Amino acid sequence: MSSLHVIPPALERLIRSFSQLPGIGSKTATRLALNILRRPPAEAREMAAALAELHSAIRLCSRCMTFSEKDPCLICSDPRRDGSLVCVVEQPADLMAIEKTDSYRGHYHVLHGVLSPIDGIGPDEIKVRELVSRIKTGAIDEVLIATSSTVPGEATASYLIDRLQQLPVKLSRLACGIPMGMDIKYADQYTLARAIESRSKLG
Amino acid sequence: MSSLHVIPPALERLIRSFSQLPGIGSKTATRLALNILRRPPAEAREMAAALAELHSAIRLCSRCMTFSEKDPCLICSDPRRDGSLVCVVEQPADLMAIEKTDSYRGHYHVLHGVLSPIDGIGPDEIKVRELVSRIKTGAIDEVLIATSSTVPGEATASYLIDRLQQLPVKLSRLACGIPMGMDIKYADQYTLARAIESRSKLG
Repeated sequence: MSSLHVIPPALERLIRSFSQLPGIGSKTATRLALNILRRPPAEAREMAAALAELHSAIRLCSRCMTFSEKDPCLICSDPRRDGSLVCVVEQPADLMAIEKTDSYRGHYHVLHGVLSPIDGIGPDEIKVRELVSRIKTGAIDEVLIATSSTVPGEATASYLIDRLQQLPVKLSRLACGIPMGMDIKYADQYTLARAIESRSKLG
Repeated sequence: MSSLHVIPPALERLIRSFSQLPGIGSKTATRLALNILRRPPAEAREMAAALAELHSAIRLCSRCMTFSEKDPCLICSDPRRDGSLVCVVEQPADLMAIEKTDSYRGHYHVLHGVLSPIDGIGPDEIKVRELVSRIKTGAIDEVLIATSSTVPGEATASYLIDRLQQLPVKLSRLACGIPMGMDIKYADQYTLARAIESRSKLG
């Protein structure tokens, strides 16, 4: 193989490592690795140090299961936030997206996945048990289910609704409809159907 | 800022580091960092180790200036390759792309950049002097200029032609024209004009 001649092993090693990341093919990995090689060595060392400390510095918050350096995390331990409202999300990235809106002041519960029987992911593989025991402590009034409106997200929401409605807690779901700023003629038919079905009454 | 609450500093550090790479915005950097956090710690350690050794393991080949762990590099020291033909490229990535074609058996010279007066990059900032002294040793018959057919690539090629034609060496340039497999009606006008101009005679 000619590439053996051309790519030094130390570079190849980094390319292989980058290629394992989602959405990074071998071309992008090569481009990134070459770019790092052209930058000051201090930047590569900083990235290496950040990677090396990542897993040891970050754990799951024992309450909401999000990634955190502290336990409980800064959200769970913030006295100004409303612990009686818990928003259930699939991943920490969803939590971050909701926090960015600056319009939610409750707590969270991160499932770390969605139900996917085909991949062998059932309720025990995601943080459902932890959610149920949080609810059973009695401190939670409302659970806002904020899984994605994808097929596995919806299936997970259905499962949660089924499982949690026996518990003394109100359930709610993120509204589904036309995205802000979208022209109706460009909305897909499923979103549009859902928006009609979930129309809000005026006056 | 709410993001201070939500992203643990150790994660933020990696995101910031990834965000400096070309084509990686803060959203992609966050996605990659979260993905690494979900993978086994051994993978992050491997990536950290690859990054840490990168700059110390790789230097420039003193002959062709490409990235290499050995000096001279494996191409320059390969006795089966033709050292009288030297292909001048902008970056090591271009060399890799040409090697992949498996249709070039000469040597290379990597400029590590293109002329860009606006950014203060003149001939002394790229490896032109090294190319001239290689030619002056007299071992080179032909220099194939393979800079990109972009504005700075063409400007660099013009400069090189101007500078090298006083030396006892043949100069050539990569052919420009319609890419293989492209429908003529989709070719841009500049490529098409160039293809007409550089048409090859038949028979």
